[in-house]
Amino acid sequence: MEGLDVGLKAVGAGLAMVGAFGPGIGIGLMVQGAMQGIARNPDAAGAIQTNMILGIVFAEAVAIYALVVALVVLFVL
Amino acid sequence: MEGLDVGLKAVGAGLAMVGAFGPGIGIGLMVQGAMQGIARNPDAAGAIQTNMILGIVFAEAVAIYALVVALVVLFVL
Amino acid sequence: MEGLDVGLKAVGAGLAMVGAFGPGIGIGLMVQGAMQGIARNPDAAGAIQTNMILGIVFAEAVAIYALVVALVVLFVL
Amino acid sequence: MEGLDVGLKAVGAGLAMVGAFGPGIGIGLMVQGAMQGIARNPDAAGAIQTNMILGIVFAEAVAIYALVVALVVLFVL
Amino acid sequence: MEGLDVGLKAVGAGLAMVGAFGPGIGIGLMVQGAMQGIARNPDAAGAIQTNMILGIVFAEAVAIYALVVALVVLFVL
Repeated sequence: MEGLDVGLKAVGAGLAMVGAFGPGIGIGLMVQGAMQGIARNPDAAGAIQTNMILGIVFAEAVAIYALVVALVVLFVL
Repeated sequence: MEGLDVGLKAVGAGLAMVGAFGPGIGIGLMVQGAMQGIARNPDAAGAIQTNMILGIVFAEAVAIYALVVALVVLFVL
Repeated sequence: MEGLDVGLKAVGAGLAMVGAFGPGIGIGLMVQGAMQGIARNPDAAGAIQTNMILGIVFAEAVAIYALVVALVVLFVL
Repeated sequence: MEGLDVGLKAVGAGLAMVGAFGPGIGIGLMVQGAMQGIARNPDAAGAIQTNMILGIVFAEAVAIYALVVALVVLFVL
Repeated sequence: MEGLDVGLKAVGAGLAMVGAFGPGIGIGLMVQGAMQGIARNPDAAGAIQTNMILGIVFAEAVAIYALVVALVVLFVL
């Protein structure tokens, strides 16, 4: 039954990456807000950019959690 | 049947990480609001940043719950 | 049972690419914001373009995570 | 069981293309923003068109990732 | 088990076309933006129409990718 084992691991890793679509949308939403903010008030571009990168880091972390679980499923389990 | 056992654990861990898409979108929404708020009223940037980080922490916690469940499924079960 | 093995790998790789729809939407959202921002304040076009590309890079990275998992499932596992 | 093998490959390729709906929505969002931007400020049409095409290229790349995985599943695996 | 083979191919082709709803929404969004733009500024109708058609071509391409994969699943596999 080794084939079934490997195959189900592949399905599990694939399912984990489905969760990565959230951060993709989220990064888009926050950069959208930052773009509109810089256009409305270019003087605040520094503070907006700093907070945008701060937010991207946390959202990217969620995608990396999914990636870590996928890689653990593939190589460690 | 050990192969089936390990394979279904992989599927379970993958399904748990599907739940991480919510925090990804949510962090994007809250940072989007913060960016627009700082642009409209730069004097409130300090208070906005503090509350944005507070909100990110709670949303990130949801993603970490999913990660914990995935890791428990993989290593403790 | 080798056929089942290969077939489930295909399903896993396909599931991983489902996660790529998030970055697709996200890139659209951030460029949408950038377009509206440049139209409203063409003088800020430089700062907007810089931050737009910065955001696209992070969102594209999420899609590449999914692609990497799909390729690992197909060729390494 | 070769039939099951081929059938699951078909399902995997189909799942991969599900991920293509994100870039479809994303391209729509960014062109929507560009249309409204050109209408509001026709003088910025050049900068808007340049950035719109830049964004479309990155979103289209995500769809091509899904297409590549689908074709690999069908013909290489 | 040839019946299962043919049935799973049908499921795969169906799943591939699920991805076509993204371009459908996306084309709607971009034409929506173009309609509002032309209404607001009829003088910009030429530039808007040109860019609208450019965007539709790229979104339509995403739908054609899904169609190609569905047809390959049905007739080539």
